[in-house]
Amino acid sequence: MNYKMMGKFISRILLVEAVFMVPALLISVFNKETKSVVGFVLGIVIILALAGILMLLCGNSPRGFYAREGLVCVGMSWIVMSLLGCLPFIISGEIPNFMDALFETVSGFTTTGATVMSAIEEMPYGILYWRSFTHWLGGMGVLVFVLAISSAGDSKSGYTMHLLRAESPGPKVGKLVPKMKTTAEILYVIYLVLTVLNIMFLLAGGMPVFDAVCTAFGTAGTGGFGIKNDSIAGYSPYIQNVCTVFMLLFGVNFSCYYMLLIRQFKSVWKDEELRFYLGAVLVSIFVIACNIRGLYGTIEETVRHAAFQVASIVTTTGFATTDFDLWPALSKMVLLALMLVGASAGSTGGGFKFARLLLILKSIRRNVRQVLQPQKVQVVRVNGQPVDEKILENTNAYLAIYMIIIVVSCILIAIDGFSITTNISAVIACFNNVGPGFEAVGATCNFAGFGAFSKLVLIIDMLAGRLEIFPIIILFSGAAWRHK
Amino acid sequence: MNYKMMGKFISRILLVEAVFMVPALLISVFNKETKSVVGFVLGIVIILALAGILMLLCGNSPRGFYAREGLVCVGMSWIVMSLLGCLPFIISGEIPNFMDALFETVSGFTTTGATVMSAIEEMPYGILYWRSFTHWLGGMGVLVFVLAISSAGDSKSGYTMHLLRAESPGPKVGKLVPKMKTTAEILYVIYLVLTVLNIMFLLAGGMPVFDAVCTAFGTAGTGGFGIKNDSIAGYSPYIQNVCTVFMLLFGVNFSCYYMLLIRQFKSVWKDEELRFYLGAVLVSIFVIACNIRGLYGTIEETVRHAAFQVASIVTTTGFATTDFDLWPALSKMVLLALMLVGASAGSTGGGFKFARLLLILKSIRRNVRQVLQPQKVQVVRVNGQPVDEKILENTNAYLAIYMIIIVVSCILIAIDGFSITTNISAVIACFNNVGPGFEAVGATCNFAGFGAFSKLVLIIDMLAGRLEIFPIIILFSGAAWRHK
Repeated sequence: MNYKMMGKFISRILLVEAVFMVPALLISVFNKETKSVVGFVLGIVIILALAGILMLLCGNSPRGFYAREGLVCVGMSWIVMSLLGCLPFIISGEIPNFMDALFETVSGFTTTGATVMSAIEEMPYGILYWRSFTHWLGGMGVLVFVLAISSAGDSKSGYTMHLLRAESPGPKVGKLVPKMKTTAEILYVIYLVLTVLNIMFLLAGGMPVFDAVCTAFGTAGTGGFGIKNDSIAGYSPYIQNVCTVFMLLFGVNFSCYYMLLIRQFKSVWKDEELRFYLGAVLVSIFVIACNIRGLYGTIEETVRHAAFQVASIVTTTGFATTDFDLWPALSKMVLLALMLVGASAGSTGGGFKFARLLLILKSIRRNVRQVLQPQKVQVVRVNGQPVDEKILENTNAYLAIYMIIIVVSCILIAIDGFSITTNISAVIACFNNVGPGFEAVGATCNFAGFGAFSKLVLIIDMLAGRLEIFPIIILFSGAAWRHK
Repeated sequence: MNYKMMGKFISRILLVEAVFMVPALLISVFNKETKSVVGFVLGIVIILALAGILMLLCGNSPRGFYAREGLVCVGMSWIVMSLLGCLPFIISGEIPNFMDALFETVSGFTTTGATVMSAIEEMPYGILYWRSFTHWLGGMGVLVFVLAISSAGDSKSGYTMHLLRAESPGPKVGKLVPKMKTTAEILYVIYLVLTVLNIMFLLAGGMPVFDAVCTAFGTAGTGGFGIKNDSIAGYSPYIQNVCTVFMLLFGVNFSCYYMLLIRQFKSVWKDEELRFYLGAVLVSIFVIACNIRGLYGTIEETVRHAAFQVASIVTTTGFATTDFDLWPALSKMVLLALMLVGASAGSTGGGFKFARLLLILKSIRRNVRQVLQPQKVQVVRVNGQPVDEKILENTNAYLAIYMIIIVVSCILIAIDGFSITTNISAVIACFNNVGPGFEAVGATCNFAGFGAFSKLVLIIDMLAGRLEIFPIIILFSGAAWRHK
């Protein structure tokens, strides 16, 4: 295990984290939030100190990373980043309990948006900003960011690929361009441009600047931390619709945007995952709108709420304009199914991903055909290209491990005695980085009621979900730490 | 498609069904239940008439069955058998509604034990006997029975293997002996001996003969239809414990019993599925007993209820000695997880099967190891034998299709507006042939509240679960019916 290289990477991530705390500090200073100022200052100092120590210890590291080291490095980075990212919450006294603060921070970085807070509007601006910003940073991935800005990504060796692969969602990670650094840069530029566009559209609807920035962070990362107690419900229909559109945009595979930039319109138009994703969204909106028609006054309102909630859940954002826990069973089951699937691969959304579901459905069809015609060799194709059997195998293994984690987590958190629906939806909402679930963790409730052990389980679920399981499993597996 | 061969097989199954209705008819005559007598007489006449017509039409069939024809034949047989098996319920007026009667019959044959009846003790003896007997017949499989008694199984061609494979649960079907007919005979003899032993142990506890026979049918088939409104709760602790032991025995792979008969004790002792199954049972009993300790007076009572419910759920039987819907969340989550897994492959139990879970867990471990050591070829082994990659692939595909059916079914039955827990547990309870679920379909409730559409969905789930999905999927797939 190349510990020095890992240390070096983690020190860079800590530097990035410290730098990104500065705007939150400034906002606290500007708003004269003394406790928050102390929180951010101390937080930055501690993070910088640790980063310095790590840099001194791991200065002259040999280059070169194996796949397992990439996975361990990503897993470790996210844990360290979360442990230190929660310092402002604890020091400022806003979330004095360590496990609660860690839950909130992990929920932020993993773009889950599950909260332990109820009185959100009473929190200081600096803290609210930091809370929303964790979504933005976690959405595209902090290692991707480090790759984009540092010289490490220049290396022509494959080791940066292991890092990008471990942090980016989806069954396979395509390099957009041969150089990793350029790929990371392109991804972040698209992300930044879409975020700025989102802010502008929100401002055009008369949203205050602070609200617009924080809401855009939550939307871009498909996180879902709001800055109002009622999430997005209090804003105008225009703003709600802007959120719906941008949530859906951030749930699209970012390589589609790159294809648009290089004018490969046809490959975007024919992209099977994109069609599947948009098709599922439209069908779900239609079914739910019909199902909840009686609950709202006008068709516009019905469709607006249906579209907003579908977009929010399918992209695993978790904003709400209405308490969908009060919707009829059919709508709730559709939302629960969307939670399970999640957004597109290569987007900022979480969950199992439409790309994987597509592969699973196609391999089931292959399996049925093989029973009918055993003599014929069948190849699974996506977008006209044959899919490597290895990827199909990994996707199936992913589904298996995914289901086992859900079942085991449900049993573990059941010790707190909540209802079956609460437990199942809490686990799915955390593991798939959605945020709200149903009943005791519904849109109007929060996760504060769970005990420390359950919160730890859900924290691990959130990290496992965001990093697509393997980095976290390998962290916990003894084999990864054994020297070869 | 060899329709004549299929017709011939179905005609034999109908003959078997008609013959097995005779004891129920005699019980009705003996108890002077006029309406039931009419129901069984008419039922037998209609079934025999249809069997005769089929035999005349399909007399000279060419031999030879492809895999897909085996699957279609099994699927069709079960549907025809259920459509005709519900005649006595309808004609006697006990369950006048067709969909209800079909639900009850499919629930019987598939050994689900989900019922639409509430006043069970008011039903005539003949009907109660037939209802319980469907479990016994469906448990080991009616085609296996036909193979055991008919000359068809003599054939050295592989076509009977396709039938056995389609009807017997588990990821792979091993022939116990080279001849299919002998394998089928051995299975039925073991089944019969265990059933008789079960009846004798129940009689020894002072249970009336009729009760003992019906309860043993429900236990042997891991069905769960009781003949009392409170299932097994009213019987003595001794009888409850006998049920616990026999439910667990019928959840063991029958090839283990064959191994015991031929004195291969070591291979039974080392059987990984058996160890996994028994281990899971013991751990679940321990966890639940600790969790529900406060609810019952003595430790004996606590352990008895915990053991009974664990045995009942893990073997997918569905008997109850207490209303486990009132148990705390942890116990209910453990039961829900056991429902998902089900019993052993090659047993009469339903569900995903421990053998498949074992394969899934081992292939996940392989997958993690491959990430850590990509250069090393890893082979999955069960009981020391390497597992064919094809079987691993099929098991993964099975899990995928299994999850998709559960999610889709939950959405479809949600139109009736029941709670999420009710919907999820109803689908799992039907699909895995368990019987009772939670909340509105809990141990003290029944499935009468669902609409006709939902009942149809659950009927298809029960059949798909019992036949391990593929025969039912292939029945619905156009490709199977196209001529080559």
